[in-house]
Amino acid sequence: MVRDSAATKARILNAATAEFAERGLAGARVDRLAASAGANKQLIYAYFGSKEGLFDATLEAHLETLLDGVPFDASDLVGYARRLFDFNLAHPELGRLARWHALERPGLLLQLPVAGASVGRKIAALAAEQAAGRIDDSLPPAQLFVMLLAVIHAEQGPGALGLSADEQTASARDAVAVAVHRLISRSPSLGP
Amino acid sequence: MVRDSAATKARILNAATAEFAERGLAGARVDRLAASAGANKQLIYAYFGSKEGLFDATLEAHLETLLDGVPFDASDLVGYARRLFDFNLAHPELGRLARWHALERPGLLLQLPVAGASVGRKIAALAAEQAAGRIDDSLPPAQLFVMLLAVIHAEQGPGALGLSADEQTASARDAVAVAVHRLISRSPSLGP
Repeated sequence: MVRDSAATKARILNAATAEFAERGLAGARVDRLAASAGANKQLIYAYFGSKEGLFDATLEAHLETLLDGVPFDASDLVGYARRLFDFNLAHPELGRLARWHALERPGLLLQLPVAGASVGRKIAALAAEQAAGRIDDSLPPAQLFVMLLAVIHAEQGPGALGLSADEQTASARDAVAVAVHRLISRSPSLGP
Repeated sequence: MVRDSAATKARILNAATAEFAERGLAGARVDRLAASAGANKQLIYAYFGSKEGLFDATLEAHLETLLDGVPFDASDLVGYARRLFDFNLAHPELGRLARWHALERPGLLLQLPVAGASVGRKIAALAAEQAAGRIDDSLPPAQLFVMLLAVIHAEQGPGALGLSADEQTASARDAVAVAVHRLISRSPSLGP
């Protein structure tokens, strides 16, 4: 019975991921995701309490993947940026889920211990690289982290005319790498 | 009568701005915003067709402010970044409206002629600065524009402990300025 319940929960979370990524919290319909999961709507409420509870549980189910699915590497930030760019491309539903959650449940994510701990570790690793003189230190490490994420997750424009989809992707990935390189590179002329 | 109709539309768009910024398209309730506008719900549908139509009209009503409320200045990008940061801080509802619209009506915004023209002008101005050798040219101008917007609109973290709200704001504004400076600064050691 325990195994059945775990399998059912996994099916529900799977259907909830698709539904919430597509429509967000307000737009999602528990009826629709119950049908898609082959689960009883009353059972969903019994497991997760409410649509809000299911939304939070869905984000939490993906939280470690979102935060550390690509291992952070403070000694190779340009490589990390390229890998995270490709990860985002392969998992657009996770990025949409996180953006909906930021709008519809603002501030909740960083209050989760696992999120706070992951971000804290990354900032500490950036601080150590700065202290060792291997990357620029004109931004405090927490703010450098904010800016690195911003350029890695930058919403790409429509792209240049005459490029294939693959060329657009390669060009956007290279742009992320250049931006990260410029944010971290040690250069006397780039001080504040 | 024409004047009354314009005044009523303005009241509706005003209420719609608050409702959509708070709850997005799916979460917004036309009943609630009609009551807040002191307008008849049937009249809203007569003017705007549907909730989706009203959502698009609400974004369009703010589009020039969103795009050019802070005049773009390619010759002073750090100053532009500081001004846009402060503008975002003063108008959080416009940023939320744009983020909801990007999730719930993806791709629609840049298809609007006024948006395409505004972005095109900014990219051309960046290209001219690059051609004149006044800013770095390792990124194509369209991608430089994407990266500049990304750091200016970066979602700020919780900030350092022990700082007042005003100090947090000043520190985040300075971080945006440093990031923009590093993205545009001409420096031989920062090439790709």
